[in-house]
Amino acid sequence: MNLRYKTFNYNTYANRGMTLEHDISLANEYYRCNDIAIVYKKPTPITIAKVNYPSRREAIIKEAYFKTPSTTDYNGIYKGKYIDFEAKETKSKTIFPLNNIHMHQIKHLENIMRHGGIGFLIVRFTTINKTFFLPAKKLIEFIKTNTRKSIPLTFFEKNGYLIKDKYNPRVDYIEILEKLYFSGGNDESTN
Amino acid sequence: MNLRYKTFNYNTYANRGMTLEHDISLANEYYRCNDIAIVYKKPTPITIAKVNYPSRREAIIKEAYFKTPSTTDYNGIYKGKYIDFEAKETKSKTIFPLNNIHMHQIKHLENIMRHGGIGFLIVRFTTINKTFFLPAKKLIEFIKTNTRKSIPLTFFEKNGYLIKDKYNPRVDYIEILEKLYFSGGNDESTN
Repeated sequence: MNLRYKTFNYNTYANRGMTLEHDISLANEYYRCNDIAIVYKKPTPITIAKVNYPSRREAIIKEAYFKTPSTTDYNGIYKGKYIDFEAKETKSKTIFPLNNIHMHQIKHLENIMRHGGIGFLIVRFTTINKTFFLPAKKLIEFIKTNTRKSIPLTFFEKNGYLIKDKYNPRVDYIEILEKLYFSGGNDESTN
Repeated sequence: MNLRYKTFNYNTYANRGMTLEHDISLANEYYRCNDIAIVYKKPTPITIAKVNYPSRREAIIKEAYFKTPSTTDYNGIYKGKYIDFEAKETKSKTIFPLNNIHMHQIKHLENIMRHGGIGFLIVRFTTINKTFFLPAKKLIEFIKTNTRKSIPLTFFEKNGYLIKDKYNPRVDYIEILEKLYFSGGNDESTN
């Protein structure tokens, strides 16, 4: 064993502070079970280098590397519309650092919008326990008109939509989506 | 080293007979570059058991397992519409064995259709070098009205659409999609 390396249980690590991801996963399950929307998180992209095959059915990956994702984490369909989003947490009480999102993820959301899909961001400020829905259009506007490396909380309060804590699903982002893009009368309906 | 296990280069293995996947990957790249459609293959779903972190940036996955996919391999957007499909090859000259597709993948395609998306299958008979586009509706009809464990080639010839070999992109499935669902006058347009 190489002593320079520290091996530990990935799941324990992965669950640390992953509550937004967990909440969205439960919401997606709720939407699927109640036939409201079909949304899945994409698997983590990896490059596989070595696999052991003790038998045909029991392959064990022995060496693999994480890849930079080229798209967002979530996509799916709601009322016939393609939806696509990224979910991120920050511990900051006042800003959302933009290095949390890759440039090609932003580009991807822009592409989705141009092709008639609905793109957005779900950002949770964990310390103050506030979760926002931010349309991709607003995110891109911010990036194009600002040089700052972070989005202030006030921008989310002004341009985003607070996702209120509910019992089930806890992060009901479809409720916001429905109001913004499907119930009419809102400027977001044109994306 | 455990001698019961055979370790070999995954990529060499992965490329064996993976030409349909490769062709679709090139087609998707072509569609993206020419701003025709945004379609990606989802990463292979795995369960990560052990990760080494020599440093923050250089994580190495040392133990992981392949998971049964709960959805299809490909999804994306074309002309505002959500599209979703699975691509499979068979060496058989006469039948496509249904154990190539998981039951929950078929269920997934059914869900997508019900929510107004376009679901389909791309099947290549490698030995006779024929690639078919089969609407999910036809696939589901076949499964519901047959007890056989495979779909005969003749069913594809009758109910599917031959994707002709082209220079670029080689597997132009969007061309079929366009004719079936967007140019009107075809019964597929209702999915």
